[in-house]
Amino acid sequence: MSEKYMEMWKNLGMDIEKHNQLLGILGQYYTAVYLSQKNRPKSMGYFDFVVSEIHGLRIKELNDQRAKGNKVVGAFCIYAPEELTYAANATMVGLCGGADFSVPDAEAILPRNLCPLIKSFYGFKLNRTCPYFQSSDLVVGETTCDGKKKVYELVNELIPTYVLEIPHKPDTQKGKEFWYKELEAFQAEIEKLTGNKITAEKLKASIELINNKRKALKRLQDLRAKNPSPISGLDALLIFQISFNDDPVRFTAKVNELCEELEERVHNGVGVTSKDAPRIMISGCPMAIPNWKLHSIAQAAGASVVVEESCVGTRYFTDVVEPKGESLHDLLWAIVEKYSQIPCACFTPNNKRLDSITTLAKQFGAQGVIYYTLQNCHDYNVEGIKVERALKVEGLPMLKIETDYTMGDSEQIKTRVEAFLEIIEGKKAH
Amino acid sequence: MSEKYMEMWKNLGMDIEKHNQLLGILGQYYTAVYLSQKNRPKSMGYFDFVVSEIHGLRIKELNDQRAKGNKVVGAFCIYAPEELTYAANATMVGLCGGADFSVPDAEAILPRNLCPLIKSFYGFKLNRTCPYFQSSDLVVGETTCDGKKKVYELVNELIPTYVLEIPHKPDTQKGKEFWYKELEAFQAEIEKLTGNKITAEKLKASIELINNKRKALKRLQDLRAKNPSPISGLDALLIFQISFNDDPVRFTAKVNELCEELEERVHNGVGVTSKDAPRIMISGCPMAIPNWKLHSIAQAAGASVVVEESCVGTRYFTDVVEPKGESLHDLLWAIVEKYSQIPCACFTPNNKRLDSITTLAKQFGAQGVIYYTLQNCHDYNVEGIKVERALKVEGLPMLKIETDYTMGDSEQIKTRVEAFLEIIEGKKAH
Repeated sequence: MSEKYMEMWKNLGMDIEKHNQLLGILGQYYTAVYLSQKNRPKSMGYFDFVVSEIHGLRIKELNDQRAKGNKVVGAFCIYAPEELTYAANATMVGLCGGADFSVPDAEAILPRNLCPLIKSFYGFKLNRTCPYFQSSDLVVGETTCDGKKKVYELVNELIPTYVLEIPHKPDTQKGKEFWYKELEAFQAEIEKLTGNKITAEKLKASIELINNKRKALKRLQDLRAKNPSPISGLDALLIFQISFNDDPVRFTAKVNELCEELEERVHNGVGVTSKDAPRIMISGCPMAIPNWKLHSIAQAAGASVVVEESCVGTRYFTDVVEPKGESLHDLLWAIVEKYSQIPCACFTPNNKRLDSITTLAKQFGAQGVIYYTLQNCHDYNVEGIKVERALKVEGLPMLKIETDYTMGDSEQIKTRVEAFLEIIEGKKAH
Repeated sequence: MSEKYMEMWKNLGMDIEKHNQLLGILGQYYTAVYLSQKNRPKSMGYFDFVVSEIHGLRIKELNDQRAKGNKVVGAFCIYAPEELTYAANATMVGLCGGADFSVPDAEAILPRNLCPLIKSFYGFKLNRTCPYFQSSDLVVGETTCDGKKKVYELVNELIPTYVLEIPHKPDTQKGKEFWYKELEAFQAEIEKLTGNKITAEKLKASIELINNKRKALKRLQDLRAKNPSPISGLDALLIFQISFNDDPVRFTAKVNELCEELEERVHNGVGVTSKDAPRIMISGCPMAIPNWKLHSIAQAAGASVVVEESCVGTRYFTDVVEPKGESLHDLLWAIVEKYSQIPCACFTPNNKRLDSITTLAKQFGAQGVIYYTLQNCHDYNVEGIKVERALKVEGLPMLKIETDYTMGDSEQIKTRVEAFLEIIEGKKAH
């Protein structure tokens, strides 16, 4: 891939040498984690291809669009209003933030005891090895957590960054009204950036575009309720991750194609594990690409990971935007209502998340939950206390893993996950 | 003190044995840190007395008030609307959260890598050794930071807790309107709690009450601009800390009495250090009583601490509430405007704080700034990057100290502070 896109990367101001190192590491890691899996659905071929071209062809597509005058907006959070972005003929992409590769660069400036995702994304902008950052005309941030909120101020010194404020007391009328006004302000911002007016017609079309993506992902997710699951946790996670980078129309079609193959598998009783493999939910912080650490450990230990209660998972696609009318006002309110359903741990109190976790556990037949906290993420870390209690009421065991992107604790996590799976096996035997 | 108030503490449900341990530790610590200071103003006698009775007489006063049907509201933040609380005949008090004593109890439940203030206050409620918690009818929380926001949910399981939402993008009209609505909702809450209606007349009176307190504290602070300062940093800090616990009328009178003595000192050129002592600003996280760690280290190293850019310091009293009319609406808006001036690091961007720090440094003749971050406080920690840059422009050196409430790192901090003071001395010599 390197030679083919060298010119493009240079034009994007990337650090070519460092980026080559990154590509080498990612390629090896992907081969080891993904391509070593047995019995993968054939339709995963497309997603393997997307990964292989994730810094190449997809970046070329984005920059071909930019050459035509269309804009690219980068984001890190599912509160960044995708629908409004597409309604202004702009493309929204997830930015890099899932690799330890860029953390040392960030730590030259940031405190070390920040969440690895935040250090990773700031480092990727600093060291110019993320082609999505380099191809973005605007970054859209949000006030979901202290760390991101404050580091966006520093990102803004490197690339224009617009921060949306998320009200933290959910389901109040005044919170929703505030969020509506924030959406209006974002609309003005994106109209200014693109020079395109967002009409009701355009917004309706982009709502449908993104709804279709969410529906396809939910269709995929629902198939994992079967025992055995027709797709591995790692493969499902990859698709959820790619959903933030790929072209939404093509991606949706490819996910639906995959679902057809998986339905066939289900019909034939074909799965990726035995029926007896312990079924695990992973709940907590988002896992940005290439953060496959916990899934690969759990899978290697014999677990069937069947659901991710995560922003890179169910929180993104469980609900769709459902307008009650055709006006811009109605459409924006429908976005407010949908986004208000996302049970992010930034909310207080966040009982909706506790309900969501226990409901998902039942729906997908999870026999245990691995609670995943990125280091120094206070929101998810503290909320884990309430999640564990809620699961206990349901008789479901929970294992809490707090980790970063390094591999230093992999053996320790492996040992803990294995012990956890033994507990689940023991419970089943009684 | 112990015997005299034993019955009261028992009635408050306190853990008597543990509380006795705490009192023993505090008494020794206060004697070592405060009473060993030389050349203290005579008027400090009152504040020494307040500290000696802070778990005794003051608690008796609060509970005498409660016996008459008046309510006590506990808080941890200067955004908790003191004026509205007093307007409903309730008293607002700062809750315990400045000692390592309660941290191990908190860590049985909370993650260890949370800010010590948060662990401390949760531990104080859990272990029932804070008589202010035990005397509170309501706790008022806020969404200033992730850690507090999520731990208030757990505090609410032990004592009724009402959380106010603070908008995080400052100075926007919609943020102020949201905060106005939050104040209205808090007004309703406090009226329900107390059974007292908040009238314009009552609110006007309580605004004056608290303005007088803020003005007295500012009068005290302004005297520290003199060289040599007529009062030590430790003593000023103590008064700022006590301002959250003492009766506001009495406290204000006693601070003004102290100011008269200090004015006399200034007139006579009397100070607590030599004129050559390096003048230091401490900027950053709040220091709840008995958090005297950094001040005592800096003072012992020869510094004259002349200003605290802190919620327990200038952020509390720099501005007063200035109504533009007499209606409840005008009075509430004046509160919105005043509180919006507080440059908490929870805001994004928070340029007002950078301006405030450089302005205060000039006003008080600070020759260096010690930036104080409680461990795992992302807001203040990350904002320190911008503060350091802003100070560099002014030619002011900054030393960043990130610490908790334990004494394990005291020697290390001492060494770093001493080296920092040498740098300042070296600059003066050139």
